[in-house]
Amino acid sequence: MKTYASLQWQNGILRLLDQRLLPHQQSYLDLKSVYEVAAAIREMAVRGAPVIGVAAAYGMVLAALQNEINSLQELQTILKNSAQVLVASRPTAVNLSWAVQRMLKAADEPGLRTIADLRDRLLREANDIAAEDSRTNRLIAQNAFPLVPDTANFIHHCNTGGLATVDYGTALGIIRFAHENGKKVHVYVDETRPRLQGARLTAWELSQLGIPHSVIVDGASGFLMQHHKIDLVTVGCDRVASNGDVANKIGTYNLAIVAKAHGVPFYVAAPTSTIDPSIKTGHEIPIEEREPSEVSQIGTETILPKHSAVFNPAFDITPAAYITAIITEAGIACPPYEKTLPLLLKKAQTIHRNCS
Amino acid sequence: MKTYASLQWQNGILRLLDQRLLPHQQSYLDLKSVYEVAAAIREMAVRGAPVIGVAAAYGMVLAALQNEINSLQELQTILKNSAQVLVASRPTAVNLSWAVQRMLKAADEPGLRTIADLRDRLLREANDIAAEDSRTNRLIAQNAFPLVPDTANFIHHCNTGGLATVDYGTALGIIRFAHENGKKVHVYVDETRPRLQGARLTAWELSQLGIPHSVIVDGASGFLMQHHKIDLVTVGCDRVASNGDVANKIGTYNLAIVAKAHGVPFYVAAPTSTIDPSIKTGHEIPIEEREPSEVSQIGTETILPKHSAVFNPAFDITPAAYITAIITEAGIACPPYEKTLPLLLKKAQTIHRNCS
Repeated sequence: MKTYASLQWQNGILRLLDQRLLPHQQSYLDLKSVYEVAAAIREMAVRGAPVIGVAAAYGMVLAALQNEINSLQELQTILKNSAQVLVASRPTAVNLSWAVQRMLKAADEPGLRTIADLRDRLLREANDIAAEDSRTNRLIAQNAFPLVPDTANFIHHCNTGGLATVDYGTALGIIRFAHENGKKVHVYVDETRPRLQGARLTAWELSQLGIPHSVIVDGASGFLMQHHKIDLVTVGCDRVASNGDVANKIGTYNLAIVAKAHGVPFYVAAPTSTIDPSIKTGHEIPIEEREPSEVSQIGTETILPKHSAVFNPAFDITPAAYITAIITEAGIACPPYEKTLPLLLKKAQTIHRNCS
Repeated sequence: MKTYASLQWQNGILRLLDQRLLPHQQSYLDLKSVYEVAAAIREMAVRGAPVIGVAAAYGMVLAALQNEINSLQELQTILKNSAQVLVASRPTAVNLSWAVQRMLKAADEPGLRTIADLRDRLLREANDIAAEDSRTNRLIAQNAFPLVPDTANFIHHCNTGGLATVDYGTALGIIRFAHENGKKVHVYVDETRPRLQGARLTAWELSQLGIPHSVIVDGASGFLMQHHKIDLVTVGCDRVASNGDVANKIGTYNLAIVAKAHGVPFYVAAPTSTIDPSIKTGHEIPIEEREPSEVSQIGTETILPKHSAVFNPAFDITPAAYITAIITEAGIACPPYEKTLPLLLKKAQTIHRNCS
């Protein structure tokens, strides 16, 4: 069934599907240095909070594999610098720094005596992070299954599928699992301006998977809900604050407000790696502002007059009050999230420890 | 200041600015038959509820001017058929049928004895409709003036400027008038997918007029309001039901919901010609569904996989409960609209009678 892989590690090379060229071209980038990985993340050849975390982990491996490292100490310095380069590539998703921190922690373990030891350890950790992501996705999908009606019309925002993860998807994984397990699924894919991840990526993945779908403009969600066409909304996320506020692709907040106005459940699919217990509310999450050309240019087409300004925030914050539930690999968190999220974080540690 | 005209009548030819080519090219279409006018409306070379009403009125004149009409009776038949062709060109905006009905009524006046009489009468009526539109726009802008704060950050949806009308604009006229009369105005122009009237047309008009503006994607309105960047929202409309429900460009309803959630005033600018007292609520307004290519293609760029379906409603209905006020040439209607709209309709008749 699967005819594409967002990310593969092949003998010292990180191979990434270049998502900028989809849906028209399935082309891969072979990355050999941490700088190439950071550039691929920054330029969004690879995007999606979970997979950029994994890509960054392999970026750390590439940093460690570079030639002419003469001592363990030098390698540690290289890793610390590489961590900064990677984390700076995109500010909003927490998975990036989460994965990099895990790699640094692994590198600091006692008993790593040689450069080769450390390289092995880092590769094992990156492979673990990738395997966890894959396992996590399937658990999220299974956990969400009872929430999906037997006949389910979804709205899905942005892309949260096999492209945004190592291989199954978070919010799109929920849809996929429901479809694969006999529910009658139809997805209204909102196109997700400005970068059109819905139109370009999610529609492409759903086509590959044979899941019925219709693309809509972002502004049509209210129309559909007013006509009782939508049973539930599923989105992914880039960071969850302790109080359950969620940072996700621009347009998520509008969709959540519109869903609430119609009493439509609004579910956020979130690997626990996306939860950031270090921040209390969404106000503390940095919002990346990206270049005007994302709005003013579509492919080779310029849609704006020459001198018009653009304001292009890449993410928004959906307050917890708009979120029906947050679905993680360790179970479903309902409000009050301050209480339910810490329990799931604890449970997730056990799950991943038992599986690794 | 004005360097463009949406529509001009020149010696038996209806000259229209081809809005499909903006902002890159300012090119005019010279239309010589009612069928050409209907096609220009259907294909959206001309769009905007007020101006398509005026274009249709001149379309009726063109129908009357065709050669080889041998009797008044034949001319009346031609007019009735032409009316049907024009009204069928777009179903949602009521101005189209309103203007065409006015033309039929004028053609039915007693005392029109010759074909030449009738042709003169029709041209006079079309000119009156155009002049009324222009007058109406300025009155809407003046009526709204006290509602605009001295420093005002707007969100504006779709295009409602000089392009959508004969020459000043409805919702954009409000912005323009406030700017011209010393208020400090900034406009967040939402791009208005799928046809990008905000990005292509409104940004272009604001550039021409020297009004500060920033283009945003439709999904960014909530972000801006959450950050207290927006003082008011202004939109135009295609039809107002007796209860104050409003049909307007897809995405309007989402914007209204988001505005209400943030306590931001949501104003609809509506010439009284847009009010349809024959229908009780928005449920009765037919919603045009347009071709998938409006979503799947942007210029020469295809953004969707080949086999993905598209759902593309061109308008939505914003229930009256979301509308702070409806601003007409005859004054401002506040809820309950069932009571206030009929008063303004009556007052509008006096205004236009006294001015013509």
